Amino acid sequence: MSAPANVGVIGLAAMGASLARNLARHGNSVAVYNRHYSRTEKLMKEHGDEGKFYPAQTVKEFVDLLERPRTAIIMVKAGAPTDAVIDELVEYMEPGDIIVDGGNAYFKDTIRREKELRDKGLHFVGMGVSGGEEGALLGPSMMPGGSDASWERLKPILESIAAKASDGEPCVMHVGENGAGHFVKMVHNGIEYADMQLIAESYDLMRRGLGMTPDEIGDVFEQWNKTDLDSYLIEITAQVLHHKDPQTGKPLVDVIVDHAGMKGTGTWTVQTALELGVPVTGIAEAVFARGLSSQSELREEAWKQNFAGPDGRIELGSESREDFIERIRQALYASKIVAYAQGFNEISVAAKTYGWNIDMAHLARIWRAGCIIRAKFLDRISEAFESGEANVSLLFAPFFKQGIENSEADWRKVVAAAAESGVPAPVFSSSLAYFDGLRSKRLPAAVIQGQRDLFGAHTYQRVDMPGTYHILWAEPGQEEVKMSD
Amino acid sequence: MSAPANVGVIGLAAMGASLARNLARHGNSVAVYNRHYSRTEKLMKEHGDEGKFYPAQTVKEFVDLLERPRTAIIMVKAGAPTDAVIDELVEYMEPGDIIVDGGNAYFKDTIRREKELRDKGLHFVGMGVSGGEEGALLGPSMMPGGSDASWERLKPILESIAAKASDGEPCVMHVGENGAGHFVKMVHNGIEYADMQLIAESYDLMRRGLGMTPDEIGDVFEQWNKTDLDSYLIEITAQVLHHKDPQTGKPLVDVIVDHAGMKGTGTWTVQTALELGVPVTGIAEAVFARGLSSQSELREEAWKQNFAGPDGRIELGSESREDFIERIRQALYASKIVAYAQGFNEISVAAKTYGWNIDMAHLARIWRAGCIIRAKFLDRISEAFESGEANVSLLFAPFFKQGIENSEADWRKVVAAAAESGVPAPVFSSSLAYFDGLRSKRLPAAVIQGQRDLFGAHTYQRVDMPGTYHILWAEPGQEEVKMSD
Repeated sequence: MSAPANVGVIGLAAMGASLARNLARHGNSVAVYNRHYSRTEKLMKEHGDEGKFYPAQTVKEFVDLLERPRTAIIMVKAGAPTDAVIDELVEYMEPGDIIVDGGNAYFKDTIRREKELRDKGLHFVGMGVSGGEEGALLGPSMMPGGSDASWERLKPILESIAAKASDGEPCVMHVGENGAGHFVKMVHNGIEYADMQLIAESYDLMRRGLGMTPDEIGDVFEQWNKTDLDSYLIEITAQVLHHKDPQTGKPLVDVIVDHAGMKGTGTWTVQTALELGVPVTGIAEAVFARGLSSQSELREEAWKQNFAGPDGRIELGSESREDFIERIRQALYASKIVAYAQGFNEISVAAKTYGWNIDMAHLARIWRAGCIIRAKFLDRISEAFESGEANVSLLFAPFFKQGIENSEADWRKVVAAAAESGVPAPVFSSSLAYFDGLRSKRLPAAVIQGQRDLFGAHTYQRVDMPGTYHILWAEPGQEEVKMSD
Repeated sequence: MSAPANVGVIGLAAMGASLARNLARHGNSVAVYNRHYSRTEKLMKEHGDEGKFYPAQTVKEFVDLLERPRTAIIMVKAGAPTDAVIDELVEYMEPGDIIVDGGNAYFKDTIRREKELRDKGLHFVGMGVSGGEEGALLGPSMMPGGSDASWERLKPILESIAAKASDGEPCVMHVGENGAGHFVKMVHNGIEYADMQLIAESYDLMRRGLGMTPDEIGDVFEQWNKTDLDSYLIEITAQVLHHKDPQTGKPLVDVIVDHAGMKGTGTWTVQTALELGVPVTGIAEAVFARGLSSQSELREEAWKQNFAGPDGRIELGSESREDFIERIRQALYASKIVAYAQGFNEISVAAKTYGWNIDMAHLARIWRAGCIIRAKFLDRISEAFESGEANVSLLFAPFFKQGIENSEADWRKVVAAAAESGVPAPVFSSSLAYFDGLRSKRLPAAVIQGQRDLFGAHTYQRVDMPGTYHILWAEPGQEEVKMSD
C-alpha cells in the first residue's frame, strides 16, 4: 500500500490543529500526530469529517503515512521542544524529505537547524505563520524560508491554505534561504508592537487628553478605518473599545489590568536590530512601554510618590476637539510609516548580512491578508518597492514622503501637546525624532566624536580630507595627528 | 630564588601598559608580558625606571615570576584573544592562583570563564576598568567581580592604583560574584551613552535652535559645570567646543564628520535590558542615535529628498535666550536622572536574576572619580541608596524627586520646542515619556491586552478579581470565560 498523505502536521495544539484542518479542508490528505494521543483523538472526533486525516500513534507511523518526498510541518513550542521533534523525525526520514517548522523560532536557531539537516540530506524550512488560531484555520499569511527545491514541493500545498489578498494572490512566498522566513516574521511582529502602541497612545491622548469615553474613541477608530489607516488592528481596536463588560457594565478596557504581556518576538526584533546597527526606535519604545506597564512594584511605588505634574488634559485653546482628533490621526499615520520604514530597513540590512535575496515588494503583498498587521497601505508599500522608490528607505517613496509631509505639522503639535500635558507618547515622539534626525544635514554626533577622542583616543574623521585623526589633548600644543589614511 | 613579582600584567597595549606603570609607580613589583616582545621592550625602555618591572619573554616565564598565590591581570581584546590567553595561563598556574580579566568582556562570557576556572581550582575575576588610557595610568575606577577569597588578595593591590574620590576613598570595590563586575561596567557605559547624547542634544538645541556658536555653547557648558551638572563629560564638552582646528581656523566640531562610533557596550546594555524586561529607553535612544548618525547612505539620500519641515530655529517669543538656555539645562538634569534611574534599575534586576549582592551605594561612590561618568551628583545617588530611599527607583529618593519636579516644566517646554522646531531630541523626549508613563495611574496597556486577547487569545487579568480571562470574540454572545485562577 502506498503512503496516503501528501503532508503531515506534528503538534495539534490550537495552531497545529487549525492548520491541519485548513489543509484537509483544501483537499490535502493530512497525517496528524501529537505526543499525547488524546489530542489527536479529539481532533478526529470533532473535525475528522472535514477532510482526509490520517492519525498516527507514533512518529514512525506518522512518517510512514507520508508520500515521498515527505513533507512534515512541525507546530510545537519554539526551542527545545522543536529540537526534540526534529530529532525524532530525522530517525525515520530519508534524504530529500522536508521538515517545516511553523513555530515562532528564533531565526538563528533556524539557520543552525537548516545546516544540520542539510548535512543529512534533508530540507529544513523555517516558516513564520501569522494570523493566530483563526488565521491558521481560515487562511494565514505564511513566510517559509529554505531551499528552492523544498519551495517547489511546498508551493501548491501552502498556496491552497494561505489567506488570499483582495486581488486573489495567496499570502505566501518563498522568502529566502534558511532563517529568512522566521526573520521576516519576527520583524512583522516588531512592527505589530509599534502599531499597537501607536494605537494605544492615540487612545490615551483622546481618553485623558480630550476626556473622551471608550465608546466615543471606538467610534473614532471606526471612522479612521475608512481612511489611509484602514487596517485590521484599527478595526479590532474599535471592537475592543465598544465592548462592555457584562459583569460590571463598564467598558471592557476599564476592567482589564493595564499590564501588557509579550512573548519575545518584539524583544528579538530590537535585540537583532541592535546587533545589525539599525535604529528601530519605534519598535524599541513599544517593547519598553509594555515592559514598564508590567513593572507593578515600580508603578505602585510611583503612584504613592504622587509626582507633581500636569494631569494629562490637553489645552485646546480655540481649536475644536474634532480638529485635534484629526491631528492625532495624522500623527498616527506618520509614525506608522516610520515604524514600517524602520522594520523594512532591518530586513534589508539582515538580507545583506545573511545573504538572503528577499523580494520586498512581494513580502509587503503577502502581509495584505491573513496576518495581524494587514493594512490597506501595504499595497502602496509593495508598489514603492516594486518601482525601486523604497530601495533605500520607504520614507523616500513619493507616496510616503508626501504622506509624512502632509502629516508633519499635526504630528509635531501632537508630540508637543503630549509633552506639555503629561500623556506619555513614546512612539509618537521617538518616531518624530528619528525623522528629524534623518533629515538633519548635520547631527550633533560630531560633539560625541570629539568627546570620544578626548577621553578614549577613539579618533575622528574630518569633513575636508580622508584619514582618521586624533588630538593630543593632554599635550600643551593639543596638536592633531593623523592616525591612518 | 623566590618569585619577585606580587602582580603581573599580560597585554601591553595602551590600557595594559598604563595599568602596569600605575602598579609599578605604587610600589608593586610587576611582571609584564606581551605576545610580541617588542612592546615589552618599549615599555621597559621608556618607563622601566618608574618602578619594579619584571619582563618575561614567554607565558611560562611570566607565571614563574609571580609570587604565590599568583595574580595575573589580562589586558587584551575581549572575546577569542582573552580565551586564548586564559588557556595559556592555565597551563602553568596552580590552584589558588588568580586570573583577572581587565578587558571589556561581555558579562556572560565572564560567568562562563569563572565557572570553568573554578572547576580547575583557580580564581577568575572579571574586572571592569573605566577611565581610558589616562585613567589606567593615573587612577581608574575598577569594578572587579569574583570570589571573596580573590578580593582579599586583590584589595590592597587595586586600592593602591585606583582613583581616589575627593574624600580619599579608593574607587574600587568587590562588586559581586563572577560576572557582576563586567555587568556594572557595561551599564556604566550605557549610562555614559545616554549622558553624551543628552549633551549632544543640548548642544544641538543651542546651535540650531538658538543660533549660538560652538564657542558660546562651550561657555554655557563651562557655566553648567558649576551647577548640579558638575561632571567630567560636561567639562570636556566645553573643552571640545572651545577647540579650534588649526588647519582651517574653524571650530573643531564643524570639522569632525558627524558619524558617532561605538564599540558594543551600549548595545549590550540595551540587549541585556530587553532580556531582563527593564526599560532603558534613554540608553536605547542614545545607541540608536549613534547608529542613525553612521548610516551614511540613508542620510545622504535623505538630504537629497529635502523633506519639508521646520529648519530647527526655536521661536522664543518674548522669552530671552538665557531663559531658554536655563530650560535646556533643567531638561538635561531631569533626563540625566532618568538615565541613571534606568541604569540602576537594570543593575538591580540583574542582581536578583544572577544572584549578585551588589552594594549600590558603594557602586555609586566608586564612580565618583576615575571613570567617564564621574559627576558631583553621584554623592547624592550614593546617599539615596545608603538611606534606602532609592531601593525601588532612584526617582523616588527625595533629592531626585524634587530635582525632577523642579525641572519638569522646563523639560516639557524643551521637548515641545524640539518637536515643533524640528531639532531631534530623542533622549530628552524618551526620558520624559518614561517619567510620564511611570507616574500614570492607568496606562493604555489595557487596550493592548484587549487587542491581544482578540487576535491571539492571549487572555487578560481583571482589576476587580483574580484569574485570567478570555472573551470568545468569534462567538455571537462574546462571552467572557475564566481561563485560570
